[in-house]
Amino acid sequence: MNPSHPTPTSASARPDGARVARAALTRLVEPGDELPAHAVAAFGPERALALLTGRAALHPAERDLLAEHTGAPDGLARRWSAGLQRWAPRAAHLDPERDLVALHRLGGGLLIPEDDAWPAALEDLGESAPLGLWFRGTGALPAAGRTLAVVGSREATAYGRAVTRQFVGHAVRAGLCVVSGGAYGIDGAAHRAALDAAQERGGAGGAEASAPTMAVLAGGLDRFYPAGHEELLRDVMEAGLLLSEMPPGASPTRHRFLQRNRLIAALSGAVLVVEARWRSGAQNTAGHAMGLGRELGVVPGPVTAPSSAGCHRLLKETPARLVMDEDDALALLDGVRRPAGRGAPGGTAADTGTSRAPEPSVAPTSAPGTRGERRQRHAERPTDALTVEELLVVDALPLRSAVPVDRLTVTAGLALPTVLAVLSRLQRAGLAERVEDRWRRAPGGGGTVEG
Amino acid sequence: MNPSHPTPTSASARPDGARVARAALTRLVEPGDELPAHAVAAFGPERALALLTGRAALHPAERDLLAEHTGAPDGLARRWSAGLQRWAPRAAHLDPERDLVALHRLGGGLLIPEDDAWPAALEDLGESAPLGLWFRGTGALPAAGRTLAVVGSREATAYGRAVTRQFVGHAVRAGLCVVSGGAYGIDGAAHRAALDAAQERGGAGGAEASAPTMAVLAGGLDRFYPAGHEELLRDVMEAGLLLSEMPPGASPTRHRFLQRNRLIAALSGAVLVVEARWRSGAQNTAGHAMGLGRELGVVPGPVTAPSSAGCHRLLKETPARLVMDEDDALALLDGVRRPAGRGAPGGTAADTGTSRAPEPSVAPTSAPGTRGERRQRHAERPTDALTVEELLVVDALPLRSAVPVDRLTVTAGLALPTVLAVLSRLQRAGLAERVEDRWRRAPGGGGTVEG
Repeated sequence: MNPSHPTPTSASARPDGARVARAALTRLVEPGDELPAHAVAAFGPERALALLTGRAALHPAERDLLAEHTGAPDGLARRWSAGLQRWAPRAAHLDPERDLVALHRLGGGLLIPEDDAWPAALEDLGESAPLGLWFRGTGALPAAGRTLAVVGSREATAYGRAVTRQFVGHAVRAGLCVVSGGAYGIDGAAHRAALDAAQERGGAGGAEASAPTMAVLAGGLDRFYPAGHEELLRDVMEAGLLLSEMPPGASPTRHRFLQRNRLIAALSGAVLVVEARWRSGAQNTAGHAMGLGRELGVVPGPVTAPSSAGCHRLLKETPARLVMDEDDALALLDGVRRPAGRGAPGGTAADTGTSRAPEPSVAPTSAPGTRGERRQRHAERPTDALTVEELLVVDALPLRSAVPVDRLTVTAGLALPTVLAVLSRLQRAGLAERVEDRWRRAPGGGGTVEG
Repeated sequence: MNPSHPTPTSASARPDGARVARAALTRLVEPGDELPAHAVAAFGPERALALLTGRAALHPAERDLLAEHTGAPDGLARRWSAGLQRWAPRAAHLDPERDLVALHRLGGGLLIPEDDAWPAALEDLGESAPLGLWFRGTGALPAAGRTLAVVGSREATAYGRAVTRQFVGHAVRAGLCVVSGGAYGIDGAAHRAALDAAQERGGAGGAEASAPTMAVLAGGLDRFYPAGHEELLRDVMEAGLLLSEMPPGASPTRHRFLQRNRLIAALSGAVLVVEARWRSGAQNTAGHAMGLGRELGVVPGPVTAPSSAGCHRLLKETPARLVMDEDDALALLDGVRRPAGRGAPGGTAADTGTSRAPEPSVAPTSAPGTRGERRQRHAERPTDALTVEELLVVDALPLRSAVPVDRLTVTAGLALPTVLAVLSRLQRAGLAERVEDRWRRAPGGGGTVEG
């Protein structure tokens, strides 16, 4: 095995307290919740878990240390108290050993920052770095600066697929790993082209080779989502890796898709958007890429094609680089360096406690700004103006059979008072419907989950 | 008649010494020759003509004044002497009154800087401003800031034609005048769309209306080039204007096409490139637009289409704005103001004597730079590395029957020693062939004239 390309399996073979605690944390905490990351940075994963689940109380000295880590001592007591309410509903349902065994049986495990194989590039996310990374597969993690994300619309055209195939094939033959989200459309075309190119390049991947492709999924790795991509994702797993910050059984919600996009950007030396509609998940990934200082490349297309409207928007409104051929795509990684050495193993991670990843400048959940306003053809979705909390509750609401509120607190990972307040707002907005003492999505409210 | 939109005809109705002298100058001097422009600025057109043709000698006081105008006194005597040799071959063939009568019979005339209708925007060209502007047609010159150039490849695709039609139609319905070069492909589609939109907008043009479209041609206006566009160019003439700095009978050479492009850029508030191959005349026009501070818009297309490769190159390598719809095209003219008042009539033009239009940063006659070098698919043409003088001689060489050298001095507008030296270089390069005492283009040397 190439020591410079450690496989996650080698790391996850040692179960330990940190790993078990982090496995629990990935189930307890919704991605992007920053207070737990500060707690882990301050106290280590095991003590943080005890505190977050309410099994232990925060000592005054710990409170000071946490305040130091967050850099915002004012209101910390209130934030901590709100967090405890938010985490409590799920605290009762944790069984990290079972999750670790489940993933081990599926040929995977949990990669944690204490492992040597942990991708240092994830630390660019600061306090929104994942608490752990579940994986399946035997491909070796690629070296930093050797990963190119290729993302785009689910509704890809023949043009988009052909360009993806051409550019990805060239990148993989040049030894790169192509990262994507496993979705229909451009994502799927990117994974498939990477697998085909790897086979041409000789060797079927496996434990000896650096992964030609990695799929970062929004839900747990015990199932393949979308279902129509099961065969593709199995092939990705065999030659490369499936990754997710969500534990087995976790469903892919809209919020988790958007959070997943930050991992695609962070894991990649550069991000290439092949086709994107006026508002699309690919633009969210692009926003994360810019926020993280990753080079962003965008492929133009016919201005008459809605499938390229988001690409042209990125080229007009951001410093994205126009990519017109496979050489341009490879050149996105020119100058990408291995990130500076990360904190020593053991969870001190002092450098992750205070740095904040900048806000992405393009976020599809926000209004598209003045330029977008005059484009009447790009209609607002009913869920566009929602807060993260509202989005979490909408995602947690079933479409048909209504569920009780305490179930929503678990699914959404929010405190009871928050869920009640949000439900009332959603009801007024016509997005949630009350059926006796239970709740469900209102008919016509909210869209499908974003891929 | 709208006094703010003077027709050129109203100005050219008064024949005078300046007009006759400038008519002669447009035949004597090859476009882009800057010393004659300095002489005209210093001495007025009539005295300048006498000096340039050798009918009068430069007094010492005039030499000092000319040196002041050129801003480069060193070597002026040598430059002037070389100029006299360059202009002498054509000096014997001038008959400006005949040219003025010829254009008048064709429903046109010569517009000169001394006319109130002279487009002030042309003065942005500094010493490379045209010495006069021949025209045919009755449409009124549009107000400054109300002109949009739309240019592109001769080999236009159905996509390029459709986009041109859509964007131009919108621009003309919004009251703009669309300027182009009358060539096959995008140019022709732009003129046709402008004419159709003008007809929809009501009124068939004519003397009362501001021209919906103007075609700037590289040769004399007594013939329609390309021949296949005779009907289109007649329609442009009827609703709008045909313009050229070349006198009747002048043939459209490659050099004149490139020089013509500077007029398209200067006459327009902004330039829109719809489709352009990796090297194309449209890129030359784009280079002039940037050099003149005109806003440059570029329409992207499929990266798989060679017809858009030049567009993508412009978007990558220049500050051009990506134009994805008709609103973007109109927005190119946002902020374009009527240029500051020009010099008083009578040719003092003190503000044009020293300002120099910056070099266009993209010129198709030069090598495409480092990025271009790795693109093996874009082969060099044999004429790519030629100097302006060499280009003039190549253009002057007939393809079949060989001509004597003195004939080449007239056609190319170059002095005899220069033509002899250039012919010897072209012969070594396999571009010129000697047949006894005559010369012609070598078989396979040089391409067709650029449109």
